Amino acid sequence: MQWNDTYLRVRYQETDQMGVVYHGNYYTWFEVGRSDFFRSLGYSYVLLEKEGIIMPIISSYCEYKIPAKYDQEILIRTRINSIKGARLEFNYQILHKEDNALLATGKTIHAFADKNMKPVNFKKTNPALWIILNKCTAEVF
Amino acid sequence: MQWNDTYLRVRYQETDQMGVVYHGNYYTWFEVGRSDFFRSLGYSYVLLEKEGIIMPIISSYCEYKIPAKYDQEILIRTRINSIKGARLEFNYQILHKEDNALLATGKTIHAFADKNMKPVNFKKTNPALWIILNKCTAEVF
Amino acid sequence: MQWNDTYLRVRYQETDQMGVVYHGNYYTWFEVGRSDFFRSLGYSYVLLEKEGIIMPIISSYCEYKIPAKYDQEILIRTRINSIKGARLEFNYQILHKEDNALLATGKTIHAFADKNMKPVNFKKTNPALWIILNKCTAEVF
Amino acid sequence: MQWNDTYLRVRYQETDQMGVVYHGNYYTWFEVGRSDFFRSLGYSYVLLEKEGIIMPIISSYCEYKIPAKYDQEILIRTRINSIKGARLEFNYQILHKEDNALLATGKTIHAFADKNMKPVNFKKTNPALWIILNKCTAEVF
Repeated sequence: MQWNDTYLRVRYQETDQMGVVYHGNYYTWFEVGRSDFFRSLGYSYVLLEKEGIIMPIISSYCEYKIPAKYDQEILIRTRINSIKGARLEFNYQILHKEDNALLATGKTIHAFADKNMKPVNFKKTNPALWIILNKCTAEVF
Repeated sequence: MQWNDTYLRVRYQETDQMGVVYHGNYYTWFEVGRSDFFRSLGYSYVLLEKEGIIMPIISSYCEYKIPAKYDQEILIRTRINSIKGARLEFNYQILHKEDNALLATGKTIHAFADKNMKPVNFKKTNPALWIILNKCTAEVF
Repeated sequence: MQWNDTYLRVRYQETDQMGVVYHGNYYTWFEVGRSDFFRSLGYSYVLLEKEGIIMPIISSYCEYKIPAKYDQEILIRTRINSIKGARLEFNYQILHKEDNALLATGKTIHAFADKNMKPVNFKKTNPALWIILNKCTAEVF
Repeated sequence: MQWNDTYLRVRYQETDQMGVVYHGNYYTWFEVGRSDFFRSLGYSYVLLEKEGIIMPIISSYCEYKIPAKYDQEILIRTRINSIKGARLEFNYQILHKEDNALLATGKTIHAFADKNMKPVNFKKTNPALWIILNKCTAEVF
């Protein structure tokens, strides 16, 4: 299983008075990585929502190692760790683009749901994407 | 015409590495004041959206005098300046709660629209609220 | 050990196009609860920073149960779960103020550090607050 | 005088429950454009802050024409409109990358200040950058 790479540059708005990126903003970066991951599969999250599928978050986690700073170039690495029933787990790494120093790691767990937040059997709803996502998982089934 | 008062406390997340509140966040505070303004009229913006009316922003403006800082208690003062056709103009003042020092002033201009962003004749759509809003305006008609 | 209660109202800015509060914003709410927790001890995080102590985050976690929505009144419950060496763990609950329905739970782990992000022996740096924080912990020592 | 072009993709976090980008976030995009503008001059805002110069905002303005949506590719165009004494005015255009449709326009006015927010005579503090900035202005002097 491989990582998908996404790049961004730290915004001034993302810093706080500690002089580093506010810890909550890493979750936005995970989302940027996740969106780009879908795009790399030839699919977009926009399209998914148009089909009536949303992916609400069940849990999120982040471990902070080195603080990111304004104007730095950041590499976000995203992969699917596992897909089980209606649950999808993404893993993330946040690195300095320049020297690949690891700044943070994290994960998010998502459900497949309809627009009323009811779980859906994604395997039946969208079998083509289900197969693609399964091929991407880091775990053997 | 009178101001409606709303209070909040500055969040760490709202600061940036300059050690003060990031300038873009004053627009969120204006929105907090605006929501509370509707509530003070015995109406809520939630209810308005349920009736199919949204109020997209046409323009926004802010003038910064003294930077707000983390943990300070802030007073947001909101009033309607004018309501003309499908346009509503709000005015805002941001002050220190403690000493009433003026930190910033601003305004936002809104349209009345349906969920597809098409302008609506609000006077016809919701005549009761139209009358209330007109009574609130700072200008004489 | 008891929880400290803090109240806020959901801002429009905090929602996303799913029509609910963006998942990353719960971490801002945890921070609001944490700031208020310090205040309830007769201490402020502002004062702590003036003494040269910052509390960078080591890890953060959130579990989402029911999505929060615009304009709802929210209760944030905060407590210290444990304090060990240079590490402090906070626990959080996010509830509807109206009916106490549990929306989310979470935790954050913090280090005591100086302004250069070097760990400090907080027991020596600020023995008075150290004792207060220890009295607050949920765990027996 | 010419515009400097910067590209970004709309984040899910930037949307609100209206299904479009929250109006306050355009000011963050202006900041992204401004940072990139300095970079295009062979200078960085990071370097400026290291020299003890900050550029607090005096006023900001945005006019909204077409709402930006999640996942769209955005072009931010930035230029200096004028530089007079201790005041610098930036202009911005926000466009769809795809078809160059104009979504919003805006401006921000900044002061040159030291770390205590006191105005500085930038012409004396950093004559080299002063000359470069003046060459960039849209107005004839």
